[in-house]
Amino acid sequence: MTEQTQIVLPPHPRGFHLVTHFIEDAIVLPETGVLHIFIRHTSAGLTINENADPTVQSDLEASFNHIVKENEPFYRHTYEGPDDMPAHIKSSMVGSSLSIPITNGRLNLGTWQGIYLCEFRNHGGSRKLVLTIVS
Amino acid sequence: MTEQTQIVLPPHPRGFHLVTHFIEDAIVLPETGVLHIFIRHTSAGLTINENADPTVQSDLEASFNHIVKENEPFYRHTYEGPDDMPAHIKSSMVGSSLSIPITNGRLNLGTWQGIYLCEFRNHGGSRKLVLTIVS
Amino acid sequence: MTEQTQIVLPPHPRGFHLVTHFIEDAIVLPETGVLHIFIRHTSAGLTINENADPTVQSDLEASFNHIVKENEPFYRHTYEGPDDMPAHIKSSMVGSSLSIPITNGRLNLGTWQGIYLCEFRNHGGSRKLVLTIVS
Repeated sequence: MTEQTQIVLPPHPRGFHLVTHFIEDAIVLPETGVLHIFIRHTSAGLTINENADPTVQSDLEASFNHIVKENEPFYRHTYEGPDDMPAHIKSSMVGSSLSIPITNGRLNLGTWQGIYLCEFRNHGGSRKLVLTIVS
Repeated sequence: MTEQTQIVLPPHPRGFHLVTHFIEDAIVLPETGVLHIFIRHTSAGLTINENADPTVQSDLEASFNHIVKENEPFYRHTYEGPDDMPAHIKSSMVGSSLSIPITNGRLNLGTWQGIYLCEFRNHGGSRKLVLTIVS
Repeated sequence: MTEQTQIVLPPHPRGFHLVTHFIEDAIVLPETGVLHIFIRHTSAGLTINENADPTVQSDLEASFNHIVKENEPFYRHTYEGPDDMPAHIKSSMVGSSLSIPITNGRLNLGTWQGIYLCEFRNHGGSRKLVLTIVS
């Protein structure tokens, strides 16, 4: 059985942002299953990472900027600004979807795991997510 | 309920290639669910990215080549050619599978999203995909 | 229908380790479906890669260390040791979950594909996995 809903995340500045609460507030979970989360954009992504220390979030942002630099001389897709092509590359690195097990009616995340919106554009605007529960 | 089919993508040259149409032509979608796509190879990958501008595709290829270089002095797995070990690394970066929500009988991709085969070998040959629909 | 079980992988040293047998020994597979594997940690990951040549495993370890370096001057999350922040970054790169098709009662992996635990900490200890079968 699958249930599905779509939500819109409000605009976030460029960076890695915990959005677990937006997801949990939007759905009623079954006892057992898998929650699939999909972002309908190609310059943002979704990931799971450490949910407690804000320096993890700023270090993730700094690190992806270091690994995927702006203004590389070989970029040809440049007309949407210096943050655009790096955003596409990063989105393929972290991925466009997450699948999280549901156990005893709750997301079975580890103690330190949170759901992140990876906003790779300087001004990405609101972002649409599709949430599908398979049970 | 799950339905499954296997398809073979024809050989593609090294690079990032839109293959959405190969997938859509191979399956009949239910009203609601998730499509899971799996590539049965370790030197190619699957990703979702921008579906309109060909320079995104060439920039993705150039960028992954820049981040994961050939002929690194620390590579020991070299007997299959200089493109082989980088292909394995890139495949772990982009991943071997995609999960895409199905809504109203269609893949619920964003306007600018397409499904990519990431062919990381110079001559990778045809590539086998397993498509599983969960509904 | 979903079935779910949780397993604990014994401690592995830092590196890329084939763990396919731990997974297969823990579950009974249906004829057709998808196996979802989730790791409940943010400094380790899961990936699929080449299952035969041990130099692929050591080259993956060397390559991710090269791309995501320790002791970058911009890291601020440093109090858990030099291997900690790189572990978080790498885990977002390879991902926290895998989805593998089940066909004819078996994992439908390619000939050369194996399931890897990516242990990014020097002393990560045992690691908890949640296995969910959707069929």
